[in-house]
Amino acid sequence: MAEDMTLLWGSGSPPCWRVMIALEEKNLQGYNQKLLSFEKMEHKSQEVLDINPRGQLASRQNLSCSSVADCLIPQLPTFKHGDNAVNESYAVCFYLESQFQSQGNKLIPDSPAAQALMYQRMFEGLTFYDKLNAVIYYEWFVPEGERHDSALKRNREALATELKLWEGYLEKLGAGSYLAGTAFSLADATVFPTVATLFRFGLSAERYPKLAEYHAVVKERPSVKASWPPHWLENPQGQDTLKDI
Amino acid sequence: MAEDMTLLWGSGSPPCWRVMIALEEKNLQGYNQKLLSFEKMEHKSQEVLDINPRGQLASRQNLSCSSVADCLIPQLPTFKHGDNAVNESYAVCFYLESQFQSQGNKLIPDSPAAQALMYQRMFEGLTFYDKLNAVIYYEWFVPEGERHDSALKRNREALATELKLWEGYLEKLGAGSYLAGTAFSLADATVFPTVATLFRFGLSAERYPKLAEYHAVVKERPSVKASWPPHWLENPQGQDTLKDI
Repeated sequence: MAEDMTLLWGSGSPPCWRVMIALEEKNLQGYNQKLLSFEKMEHKSQEVLDINPRGQLASRQNLSCSSVADCLIPQLPTFKHGDNAVNESYAVCFYLESQFQSQGNKLIPDSPAAQALMYQRMFEGLTFYDKLNAVIYYEWFVPEGERHDSALKRNREALATELKLWEGYLEKLGAGSYLAGTAFSLADATVFPTVATLFRFGLSAERYPKLAEYHAVVKERPSVKASWPPHWLENPQGQDTLKDI
Repeated sequence: MAEDMTLLWGSGSPPCWRVMIALEEKNLQGYNQKLLSFEKMEHKSQEVLDINPRGQLASRQNLSCSSVADCLIPQLPTFKHGDNAVNESYAVCFYLESQFQSQGNKLIPDSPAAQALMYQRMFEGLTFYDKLNAVIYYEWFVPEGERHDSALKRNREALATELKLWEGYLEKLGAGSYLAGTAFSLADATVFPTVATLFRFGLSAERYPKLAEYHAVVKERPSVKASWPPHWLENPQGQDTLKDI
């Protein structure tokens, strides 16, 4: 069905996962795909560089390589549709919805109010994701000699504040709601991988019951199940980095 | 014309400026607006908090206040259209284009190739903006006891690498082109304020001639002129933070 599409991706990378959920929702199965191994430095391969010029950038990722940093590789996702290369996860989501509007599920609601809420949550989702990364990948982002307990403590507090905001959003919407209302939308395709990563890293379902409920509902969605990170399936035990947040 | 819209903004804030360019392009002049003074802490006023829950967040911005940090205030822009509040600049741009498709200039191109390029550049623009901020607002982001020359040096190198990438993009497109081709698009509305800020902070036009050319062309565009930061007009002399980048 989608033989003119190619996706290079990494397991557990929220940006890659966003794209994979959107592809499933638009009924774009059967695309060419390759799961790259970070340990083998395959994200630096010529195959990636040919599509994605950011693969050539000198960056923190050149200095060392760690499997925990899956989601921080600017070279992935690398996506191509015919001759059109799109490598930013949000860009791919918008592109797919725009090019395949009448195929699969509609991912942008019609009503102005739902649309406003969807765009708002989708872009707040970038801040949410940044605040998560600033805690779980602090040591990856910050070289050893530049780390400070005070900074990590501040990052953890910022994440806790952010989490309370999203708890409040979900509480206001009511049980069983998606992030922009009654229909699954691009807000869910982009933000759910962040929520799943939070729980993978030990977030307390007791302390964040609305996020836990949202997580429980959306993880059963076919598009999400079909794209669940394979190394999470192989190794269901996550980490406990966030248990006290 | 746009009496049912309200924008609270700060002068020189790239996120606010993105929204103002989009409003002009869509012929949505005449909206209610209020220029907030950061020095007077007006971005923490009840007026903002009523529309934007992020105004209540504890954040680095609560600790101190500096005029140089205009662009880093998560409370702005604060935008409302009827009852729909949208506070993320990219979200407002998408919302306006979607709600006023046939009014003013079309900001998302039709052709799949141009659309792919537009989405790609638009979202790379967020990285570009982050890398700029990590240099010009380093001292604002990082508390005194946590600063390291090595970190600032790395941030400057990352910005230089990013700048070369954008020089290359513009060179490939050819003289007089916008970021996604022959038509002004959301990519320009969102990325131009970053480019203008680079030159305001002393970026060398000799070293980055394509960016300088792009800047020279787009700054004459009516939507951009109409929304030029008032404090830049009053005080045309910028800073030289970036002259050696």
